[in-house]
Amino acid sequence: MTMTTTTTTAATPVAPSRGTLRPLGLREVEITGGFWAQRQAVNATASLGHIEHWMEREGWIGNFDRAVAGTLPLDRGGREFSDSEVYKLLEAMAWEIGRTDDADLDGRFRALVGRIGAAQEPDGYLNTMFGRTGQRPRYSDLEWGHELYCYGHLFQAAVARARTRPDADDGLLAIARRAADHVVETFGPGGIESVCGHAEIEPALAELGRATGDRRYVEQAALFVERRGTGTLADIELGRAYYQDDVPVRQATVLRGHAVRANYLAAGAVDVAVETDDGELLAALTRQWEHTVSRRTYVTGGQGSQHEGEAFSDDFVLPPDRAYSETCAGVGSVMFSWRLLLAQGLPRYADLIERTLFNVVATSPSHAGTEFYYTNTLHQRVPGTVPPTDVASPRASSSLRAPWFAVSCCPPNVARTLASLAAYVATTDDDGLQLHQYAPSRIRTTLADGRRVELDVETAYPRDGVVRVTVATTEDRPWTLTLRVPAWAQGATLVTPEGEQPAPAGTVAVTRTFAAGDVVELRLPMAPRVSSADPRIDAVRGCVVVERGPEVLCVESVDLGADVESARLSRVREVDGRVLATMVIAAHDDAAWPYGERPEPAGTTADVPLIPYHDWANRGPSTMRVWLPLA
Amino acid sequence: MTMTTTTTTAATPVAPSRGTLRPLGLREVEITGGFWAQRQAVNATASLGHIEHWMEREGWIGNFDRAVAGTLPLDRGGREFSDSEVYKLLEAMAWEIGRTDDADLDGRFRALVGRIGAAQEPDGYLNTMFGRTGQRPRYSDLEWGHELYCYGHLFQAAVARARTRPDADDGLLAIARRAADHVVETFGPGGIESVCGHAEIEPALAELGRATGDRRYVEQAALFVERRGTGTLADIELGRAYYQDDVPVRQATVLRGHAVRANYLAAGAVDVAVETDDGELLAALTRQWEHTVSRRTYVTGGQGSQHEGEAFSDDFVLPPDRAYSETCAGVGSVMFSWRLLLAQGLPRYADLIERTLFNVVATSPSHAGTEFYYTNTLHQRVPGTVPPTDVASPRASSSLRAPWFAVSCCPPNVARTLASLAAYVATTDDDGLQLHQYAPSRIRTTLADGRRVELDVETAYPRDGVVRVTVATTEDRPWTLTLRVPAWAQGATLVTPEGEQPAPAGTVAVTRTFAAGDVVELRLPMAPRVSSADPRIDAVRGCVVVERGPEVLCVESVDLGADVESARLSRVREVDGRVLATMVIAAHDDAAWPYGERPEPAGTTADVPLIPYHDWANRGPSTMRVWLPLA
Repeated sequence: MTMTTTTTTAATPVAPSRGTLRPLGLREVEITGGFWAQRQAVNATASLGHIEHWMEREGWIGNFDRAVAGTLPLDRGGREFSDSEVYKLLEAMAWEIGRTDDADLDGRFRALVGRIGAAQEPDGYLNTMFGRTGQRPRYSDLEWGHELYCYGHLFQAAVARARTRPDADDGLLAIARRAADHVVETFGPGGIESVCGHAEIEPALAELGRATGDRRYVEQAALFVERRGTGTLADIELGRAYYQDDVPVRQATVLRGHAVRANYLAAGAVDVAVETDDGELLAALTRQWEHTVSRRTYVTGGQGSQHEGEAFSDDFVLPPDRAYSETCAGVGSVMFSWRLLLAQGLPRYADLIERTLFNVVATSPSHAGTEFYYTNTLHQRVPGTVPPTDVASPRASSSLRAPWFAVSCCPPNVARTLASLAAYVATTDDDGLQLHQYAPSRIRTTLADGRRVELDVETAYPRDGVVRVTVATTEDRPWTLTLRVPAWAQGATLVTPEGEQPAPAGTVAVTRTFAAGDVVELRLPMAPRVSSADPRIDAVRGCVVVERGPEVLCVESVDLGADVESARLSRVREVDGRVLATMVIAAHDDAAWPYGERPEPAGTTADVPLIPYHDWANRGPSTMRVWLPLA
Repeated sequence: MTMTTTTTTAATPVAPSRGTLRPLGLREVEITGGFWAQRQAVNATASLGHIEHWMEREGWIGNFDRAVAGTLPLDRGGREFSDSEVYKLLEAMAWEIGRTDDADLDGRFRALVGRIGAAQEPDGYLNTMFGRTGQRPRYSDLEWGHELYCYGHLFQAAVARARTRPDADDGLLAIARRAADHVVETFGPGGIESVCGHAEIEPALAELGRATGDRRYVEQAALFVERRGTGTLADIELGRAYYQDDVPVRQATVLRGHAVRANYLAAGAVDVAVETDDGELLAALTRQWEHTVSRRTYVTGGQGSQHEGEAFSDDFVLPPDRAYSETCAGVGSVMFSWRLLLAQGLPRYADLIERTLFNVVATSPSHAGTEFYYTNTLHQRVPGTVPPTDVASPRASSSLRAPWFAVSCCPPNVARTLASLAAYVATTDDDGLQLHQYAPSRIRTTLADGRRVELDVETAYPRDGVVRVTVATTEDRPWTLTLRVPAWAQGATLVTPEGEQPAPAGTVAVTRTFAAGDVVELRLPMAPRVSSADPRIDAVRGCVVVERGPEVLCVESVDLGADVESARLSRVREVDGRVLATMVIAAHDDAAWPYGERPEPAGTTADVPLIPYHDWANRGPSTMRVWLPLA
């Protein structure tokens, strides 16, 4: 791995001071159409307002006003981590303002910052749940109190604002720095020798350090990473693995415990490893990523199969019907993989990011953008009931998307990811530019040595597999355009001005002195693929999954005209761009005792469309399955 | 169904005032040898003392002393339900004293009763967790406080004592009656209109009513049954289904929520239906039993597949590797089925009881009787670590049996079941005697019309399938001997003095004027059986289970000489009484991404013994699976 020092100030969530690849920001990459632009538009026009509305309604924003008025804990709304949701909304707004210059949104953003800042205490402490008369003392419950976790999201919001509006006078960065200074003072050397039960401040402090140049924040992140795993926190019924306090980060071999916590911690540990040039730590995290991806990840990219503890289970325990696969764990997995991609440049990380974006992050919001999945099951056995629109749903109801949850971490997490999505499309290094995600886009940047690179990407991906890259402006010097060829894209080809060539899975690079108007075209095979699973994933033995491009497909009862339990797959083909499955539909034998010798029931045959998994449950209550039993 | 009024005072846990069958008690049936006698002996000589030792050590018994001394809540040991565990121990002791006349145990029993009784308050209230200065008020947390649940186990202990030692002067029955009177006064008409978050007082009150003839207790049980399901308790994150407060009992179609709570409630509701001659309620419970058995029960008889909420999941969600299958839910299932068997006489209930006794209740304790499973997984993927012997383990560690748990409901629940097991062997009705469970046993009873029936049962069951019933004494009048033929026993035969005849699954009856020395022999086929599952149980598709008689078998890594993940089944046969499986053992392909097209790995073949599931994990850490993938 080549680590080169960079000084990017790109409008991007992650800007390491060194690494194999340099991120590009929202000023350099714009998604101009297609699948993701449509979702960004829904996020901007529907989701952000919806989230803000519910946070006002539930009193989560009002908690800051009550802190100022001195009426807390009376009428405090929400759980102990509700402050963090407001900060995630703030971060989403910051990216959206950076992306679209929405003046109205900027006004709402500033108003929110004002209400939050007013609640900050003179020493930098900021939390509506602790420290007042009638509340528990500050930092008296690090296991479950989420105080440092909340700061983490505050810092990420401040970084988003600082990088998209460096000259903004709203004061958010100052609020964050006061809080961060307070954290360093309180939890630094000689202070409280502990960590937060929910990792998140680790990547956030590292990023605040990068954004401000204040090395103390990175050092504090490193301290938090090193402390964890040494039995710092109390043992609990779920075990210390729940909050990754069972094994030191650099000794662990796999992600375990609460899947969001595990990914956030891993992301922060990569940041620390990169900033402190700690090859041993980075190698440990790479091993953890490899083990987690090969043994603890759903075909959707979803992670954390256990409802109990919202957690990773043992290797290969990946039941479709009890998939927890929390939306936030998907966001956390993207955070972890993206940091490894920047550090190491390997396309496998972008592969997992793509899979997770299309099949977890895109699945959570409804088409309208005002309902969300908290968990993302891969097999819905019972048609859900339509959740109430006027009260928050329990946390993990996964039958139909719900407008809001009592624990509503996922909606703003999706919102901040979608608003900043352009940052994950492309990177540069000393020799050129790398395309990692395929969407119609406009890329305008400058390489480290000053070479100007301007590209336009046209594609109907993932509907179609042709990605056409046109050089808009370039200079009379050679540079290298690198395109990711997904691992699933067996038989891809690349067309350059020199002709067509095979593009084996991994990356394919074109080095030349490009002329404006030059076209490079990647042709990815989009025929449906039928995959089975490692036989140790017992829960899907005898089943296959159908995928098309980066999208995992599923069968939904509204298309089948029957309950999905009755259907077995006999054939898959593509007709006019639609994937059709020939299914054998049979009534089941309702025996009194479900075990014994029984003949396979005969059935009728029907051709049924398979739809992208992310599209399911947008047509009312239904049953659904991703893994299809073979006839 | 014929319901005839009975007036049994048998030494049995359940003595309905009417029903199709009449229970026999410990004075009438004695298990004299074999599988269950051996387990009863271990229970008596090892488990009871072990349980008492831990309850003293953890302070659960001492809580009563502290209540008397007025020092509570200081140093109170255990969770809010710890009183109930002491009562369950008391019940186990009472049955054991009734079974064996153990004078030392009787002394310990009386000492315990004395310590408990001293803590009872003048108005009958008895609980070490609530009501004192520094504790929460009485009945201020019906959702989680377990106060009524604790009474339930107190009542069951008192009933056990009253029926086994009607003349005992220890005062336990009086303690229970004072508490029950207090409950009737506090929760009866005009009192607190609520129920306990954990059902258990319902069957216990009904039984106390039967044992004392005090109808008020039955009426209070009926009131509790009718109130539940009407949203009486608070809504919680797990939903009101967790404590069956979502749907009224008589409207529900299936057991759901916490599996122990669900079974205890159902058992109590059967008691109420029988005592109040409520055919509608009994029909509802019958439907619930049928649906639960055909769609929510493991092949072991285990119930409650979800770790989250220790609960039933949706229909057909029965993953072997995430089986919760709590030991106490197995005990609760036996309670529910036994009550339906007495009411209706159908052999299907005894079939499930047998399956659950051999494969859940017998699996929980180690061979030594001093370690227990709380949960009973059907697939152990990772060899467990040996639990500490000197501290209580977390609740649901299922890798190896543990000496004690922080929530240790299961050990005394197993103990009371084993000590009272003879009560589940046989029943009578007006025309004769029914044998439900097969064990070497001595049966001495009198039919309702005064006919004397004395039988001796000899059998090596479940090692061998021959059950030989010899008539010891009888009178010169005909009566009917009925034997259960398990549903799995296809091809069974019955040999009577008249010759051999087919014995189809269900029951087989012999009516004659028996002479002393007459022999009836049931011959059950004990060849290993290979069963698959209803295809809607997705988690075991492509797998089979091997059973022999009532025992579910498994493969354990210590026999395989390899991890169980590597093995597939190609053939099963019996050699010299051992079940041998020919397994294909193959190394797995450790791919970076576990989904795709992959060839089945080639492997070597070996003959491996399959062992009874209840025997597993008695030889150190291992991996294990019940469901075997087919080669």
